[in-house]
Amino acid sequence: MTGTTNHQAYDDLSARFRRIALLGDAEGMLHWDYAAIMPLGGANARAEQLAELGAIAHGILTADETGDLIARASDDTSEMTEWQVANLNEISKKYRRARALDEEFVTTMARAKSACEQAWRDARAQNDFAIVEPTFTVLLDLVREEAKRIGDALELDPLDALMDAFEPGARQANVDPVFDELTSFLPNFLESILAKQQAQPEIIRPEGPFPTDIQRDVGLKFMETLGFDFDRGRLDVSHHPFCGGIPDDVRITTRYDEDDFTSALMGVIHETGHALYEQGLPAEWRLQPVGNALGMSMHESQSLLMEMQVCRSQPFLEYAIPIIRDAFKGTGPAWETENLIRLYHDVSRSYIRVDADEVTYPLHVIVRYRLEKQIISGELQARDIPSAWNAMFKDLVGIDVPHDAHGALQDIHWYDGGFGYFPTYTLGAMTAAQIYQSAKAAIPNVEAEIGHGNFTSLVAWLRENVHGHGRRLSTDDLLTQATGRPLQTSPFIDHLRTRYLPA
Amino acid sequence: MTGTTNHQAYDDLSARFRRIALLGDAEGMLHWDYAAIMPLGGANARAEQLAELGAIAHGILTADETGDLIARASDDTSEMTEWQVANLNEISKKYRRARALDEEFVTTMARAKSACEQAWRDARAQNDFAIVEPTFTVLLDLVREEAKRIGDALELDPLDALMDAFEPGARQANVDPVFDELTSFLPNFLESILAKQQAQPEIIRPEGPFPTDIQRDVGLKFMETLGFDFDRGRLDVSHHPFCGGIPDDVRITTRYDEDDFTSALMGVIHETGHALYEQGLPAEWRLQPVGNALGMSMHESQSLLMEMQVCRSQPFLEYAIPIIRDAFKGTGPAWETENLIRLYHDVSRSYIRVDADEVTYPLHVIVRYRLEKQIISGELQARDIPSAWNAMFKDLVGIDVPHDAHGALQDIHWYDGGFGYFPTYTLGAMTAAQIYQSAKAAIPNVEAEIGHGNFTSLVAWLRENVHGHGRRLSTDDLLTQATGRPLQTSPFIDHLRTRYLPA
Repeated sequence: MTGTTNHQAYDDLSARFRRIALLGDAEGMLHWDYAAIMPLGGANARAEQLAELGAIAHGILTADETGDLIARASDDTSEMTEWQVANLNEISKKYRRARALDEEFVTTMARAKSACEQAWRDARAQNDFAIVEPTFTVLLDLVREEAKRIGDALELDPLDALMDAFEPGARQANVDPVFDELTSFLPNFLESILAKQQAQPEIIRPEGPFPTDIQRDVGLKFMETLGFDFDRGRLDVSHHPFCGGIPDDVRITTRYDEDDFTSALMGVIHETGHALYEQGLPAEWRLQPVGNALGMSMHESQSLLMEMQVCRSQPFLEYAIPIIRDAFKGTGPAWETENLIRLYHDVSRSYIRVDADEVTYPLHVIVRYRLEKQIISGELQARDIPSAWNAMFKDLVGIDVPHDAHGALQDIHWYDGGFGYFPTYTLGAMTAAQIYQSAKAAIPNVEAEIGHGNFTSLVAWLRENVHGHGRRLSTDDLLTQATGRPLQTSPFIDHLRTRYLPA
Repeated sequence: MTGTTNHQAYDDLSARFRRIALLGDAEGMLHWDYAAIMPLGGANARAEQLAELGAIAHGILTADETGDLIARASDDTSEMTEWQVANLNEISKKYRRARALDEEFVTTMARAKSACEQAWRDARAQNDFAIVEPTFTVLLDLVREEAKRIGDALELDPLDALMDAFEPGARQANVDPVFDELTSFLPNFLESILAKQQAQPEIIRPEGPFPTDIQRDVGLKFMETLGFDFDRGRLDVSHHPFCGGIPDDVRITTRYDEDDFTSALMGVIHETGHALYEQGLPAEWRLQPVGNALGMSMHESQSLLMEMQVCRSQPFLEYAIPIIRDAFKGTGPAWETENLIRLYHDVSRSYIRVDADEVTYPLHVIVRYRLEKQIISGELQARDIPSAWNAMFKDLVGIDVPHDAHGALQDIHWYDGGFGYFPTYTLGAMTAAQIYQSAKAAIPNVEAEIGHGNFTSLVAWLRENVHGHGRRLSTDDLLTQATGRPLQTSPFIDHLRTRYLPA
């Protein structure tokens, strides 16, 4: 009898989470529309639609009945499959996280985020941190409270509780040593690359204009090369490129700069990496939590694997550059393969994270991560963030921040209440290196295949070892199963050495 | 105390219907996406999203609590505004209609519709009515049952109950005499036009190709001329042109034929007429039933007013044709204004409703309407429909139907369970003529303005007299208020006489 009750409770839970998933999928599509094609006048109505779908889903998730069903389903899991147990764990975690914050707190938080984000837009535009300081101070108190409440509910340290939302299982205890290793390695390594670059002839940038429709055609061609399924997705334009939609209808976006084809093209490849993960998720677990992708670091690993590991590699660039050159009818020294490869491997110290190359990027992230630890612990207050930022940036990246718009004001994340997200970028980059190292070991000819624009074996390997698992395993377990070990810095460091300072 | 209770009940109802409206708006946007841009592989997931949003909305609508709130709010409406009372009436009618059908019946009906629609696609492709006859027989029994149940709930005759869903207040008692008048007039009138046409030199069709992007640019230009607000809407492409989205984000579509620019262009103008109605609905009643447009005949009146009354009129065509000619760089006799006007006013007997001109169109509709009366009453069975169709078509349109694909199989509506919809097309055409007649009387220079591409006065008049009223008034009351009388055939007949057989 207990077995039957458990079973029924699990089925009822599945039905509830199927409804939540469909509401979320509808939100996903509507959000894509908002970002990609919606006329401006639709913004208020769209915000109301999204809020209402979110409220309905939240109501189902946090209902007492959901908690009762979880308790009953969890009572005896001995007859459940491994996937079902994993699904139940995901469901339970979602419930506990959502219930950790009462409605009043959520509303207060939403208002504080909105006020701070507005102030941040002004502050950044006017390059004046003082404009955002008061609302940011209020928001930080709420973020600390949120971290504490969720931490209590999940029995986690506050910052770990925030990080866990973006990457399940991400803990400072694991991230700290890894980031420390990068901190020991990267600054000197960066110095050496810059010295090497200075001794070389200057890179020549191809001159535009590069018509948008040709950039789009080339992007579509590479999406096809990588294995994007156009029967289940589209490429469009948005101000901030992203990968949206749902696994059976993945909407990726890019933006085109007619003076520079490199950013849109690598952007499309990056988002295609995300899209391949979504398109490869287990179809039989659609609309259940366990059928989703893992967190942001695993997702970013799939985009960076394609962009950084594979498509900026010598074999792929040697394949791709003639295609790009032909498309734009490029001639002259700027279009020589060696020059363009050097352009794609150019490293520099810069202030803005989103423009950073793969060598300096982790340093930008580590600055933010270390500050986040101090912010969430309460050691660092809003007003002291810019100076702390500038000191740490000088220490790690080696240059003086000229003003806050190029420093602590550059990213929206914190001012929208997003803490614990930044580390996933660099965890993703390292995960990408480790996974690609294992893929190369498992598929002996993979680099030759990629040099011919053949991604079949690589994508099949990723499907089998990463995409098809959904959230059945934790990030650590998946990585260990796929590569034989948990996350380490050595594959990433080896990758950088091989690419930038080969012996 | 009662007043307060009523008030609270009304507010609670408003909140419920706001949620229902937001779910419906989300559905509307997702349906547009489905029809206009979705990759095929997303179809199943999209169908599930739409079904789930529909199910959630239906659950809220039909909940006992909704009925209780309606009863309490209706208990004393003396302190409510006219708009609130009208809104409460709309709410009550939606509730009664939805509650008339239990869940089991709705599910059975949905399955029967789906089976019949599938069979119809085969039957039409193979031009064989026998393929659809069995499933159509099943569906017709269910439609009759549906009509009876809703009729009982709303105290209406069964077919009136079905028509009422498409146009509130549409009744056979009003439609019959109007359609009878048209039946007396049109066949002979048609004969005279055809005789007149035959005595004239042949119309020369401009030869293509007419590039899609130019057709699109011209369409956008005319949308702007008519007053479409591009800050709150878009023009895209779909196989079946339609007007979708929501009032603050109206998505109209068309399709382009590179051999013939006339259909896409008039199609865009037609959908723009629908869009202007949506964009002109009362903003303060967004997300409440009373804030919606009236039924299909009033909606069709707004599209046909723009397409048939205004944009095929001599003044507008004289304004528009040079623009079209310039856009396509047309030269020679086919492009002369008089020839193109005759092309836009060409009348012919044809089998297919959607290709029919405005003179024969009502006859196509009346065939269907008269058959619908017999079908819903049970007099006419599925197997006898083709022969009944052919006899009636011969009688009204004057030609022999060669086979069922050009006869009873041509439209999806019946095979998808849609009865009572067809009359709204012709009611709409007559409403358009009556409204435009009043607009011309109220705005003395309107035809001259239109001849200069100036729609400002006309759209303002429509906003004030039609669009801005939402569903505050019934269709009849709105028409009487706007034009001084309920629907009559004379403005439509006068319009046809003036255009096609001027004295």
